[in-house]
Amino acid sequence: MEIKHVCILGAGTLGSRIGFQAALSGFWVKIYDIKEESFILSQKMISKIAKGLFAAETYSKDEIAAALNRLSYTLNDEEAVAEADIISESVTEDLALKQQVWARMAQIAPEKTIFTTNTSYLLPSSLAAFTGRPTRFCAFHFHDVFYSKIVDIMPHPETDAELIPILDDFGKRLKQVPVLVKKENHGYLFNAMLLSFLGAAGKLLVNEVATIEDIDKSWMVNFHAPMGPFAILDSIGLDTAWHVTHQLPDANSKAFAALLKTYVDAGKLGEKSGEGFYRY
Amino acid sequence: MEIKHVCILGAGTLGSRIGFQAALSGFWVKIYDIKEESFILSQKMISKIAKGLFAAETYSKDEIAAALNRLSYTLNDEEAVAEADIISESVTEDLALKQQVWARMAQIAPEKTIFTTNTSYLLPSSLAAFTGRPTRFCAFHFHDVFYSKIVDIMPHPETDAELIPILDDFGKRLKQVPVLVKKENHGYLFNAMLLSFLGAAGKLLVNEVATIEDIDKSWMVNFHAPMGPFAILDSIGLDTAWHVTHQLPDANSKAFAALLKTYVDAGKLGEKSGEGFYRY
Repeated sequence: MEIKHVCILGAGTLGSRIGFQAALSGFWVKIYDIKEESFILSQKMISKIAKGLFAAETYSKDEIAAALNRLSYTLNDEEAVAEADIISESVTEDLALKQQVWARMAQIAPEKTIFTTNTSYLLPSSLAAFTGRPTRFCAFHFHDVFYSKIVDIMPHPETDAELIPILDDFGKRLKQVPVLVKKENHGYLFNAMLLSFLGAAGKLLVNEVATIEDIDKSWMVNFHAPMGPFAILDSIGLDTAWHVTHQLPDANSKAFAALLKTYVDAGKLGEKSGEGFYRY
Repeated sequence: MEIKHVCILGAGTLGSRIGFQAALSGFWVKIYDIKEESFILSQKMISKIAKGLFAAETYSKDEIAAALNRLSYTLNDEEAVAEADIISESVTEDLALKQQVWARMAQIAPEKTIFTTNTSYLLPSSLAAFTGRPTRFCAFHFHDVFYSKIVDIMPHPETDAELIPILDDFGKRLKQVPVLVKKENHGYLFNAMLLSFLGAAGKLLVNEVATIEDIDKSWMVNFHAPMGPFAILDSIGLDTAWHVTHQLPDANSKAFAALLKTYVDAGKLGEKSGEGFYRY
């Protein structure tokens, strides 16, 4: 099958970025959301990304204009999916809400449509039964589309194996590097490694082995990396970091979560609030 | 106190690199070893590094020649330490051997000499009693001197606090980035983070969540990093990786150690043998 029409569910940060890249890659894109205000924010985000891509000479003005011409917004879900060859769902990370959205899509989407979820933390098997087409449903998870260009293809046990090469090809056409997560795994591939590494840094800090700066230096200088673990946590957001960490069972994670909580309670959420472990 | 004369114990890879950088930084360096063959290997290594530094325009030919003029080898330990302001010990990673070496230094080194160990895995407190001067003894741990320029300063409980700024300054003069490990910690700062991250990658592999290549891609593309975890393991050496991993108590580490063992048994040790997870 050939993918031409893409339906994005949810006009948030990721939905907008995926939608814009799809349009840049030549697909016809419809972005659906329940709130008109989301579209204004989405257009602002896309406009900012477009400026960056033009400045970096990744795309010309004409290419960007053509992409914007292929992208439209709608509050009507039936219109959004009417022609869709594939759906990429980026609605709020809430299990009940996502189940409800997929139950609705099961009713209104054409038979041809491939269903994919961009969920960060849920497993596709928790949604599959609601899609009405579990064999044609798969997690297809983007990182940030324009800088970290990995897309995780993560089937659930019922996903049709024939879907994998189709998504692999689609991912490449979206300028991503597709990787296959052969069985369901919370956090796909990258988060498992990232969380272990950040947790080890947190353990060093809460055990007062070294300062934030020295722990970061140790990582950055050894790996010639632009950021150390605490700068990465600031960029992720300390509220998000706390949310993940406080659910982990071990004593070191609990202690690190307690430390993160003091930052969050003080309004220090990282880059987005102007201060976290560092000031911005 | 001013450091002018440096004594290196052990003419292996790290001893040679530390000694050569010290000579490049203007110090007078004596490298001691028990085997004359070590000196020939050491000179070959240093000659190779010198070529690289000259090619990269880090040092001129004259600077390199002057450095080589400040560096000498000796099989006589009394001569090696006679003028030493500081000792950097890089002998084989064997507790009893290191204890024996420090007991000997306690007898023959001048009173002024600062004692440091470059141990990777041992704690300085396991050697302190043998030095005869525990307050003037500290771990001072290099990574590879020329690419990963972190030096860990890790005191044991009896180390005199006044030693820290002296080592910090000495580290900077050796073109390193000094970091303070405030209390003894196995693996200093970096290894704790590295092992967690590599362990998480190993867990993904042994649980058959993804291929070696896809796990590496996920890390590299997300972080724009030159190497993923399995390429890093190949560069560390799979024998060393097995040695560390098989001592860890958890089931995932045990499973990963068993996998590493199959590579080691097949002679696939990573970069140094021409094949590990990848071919070189």
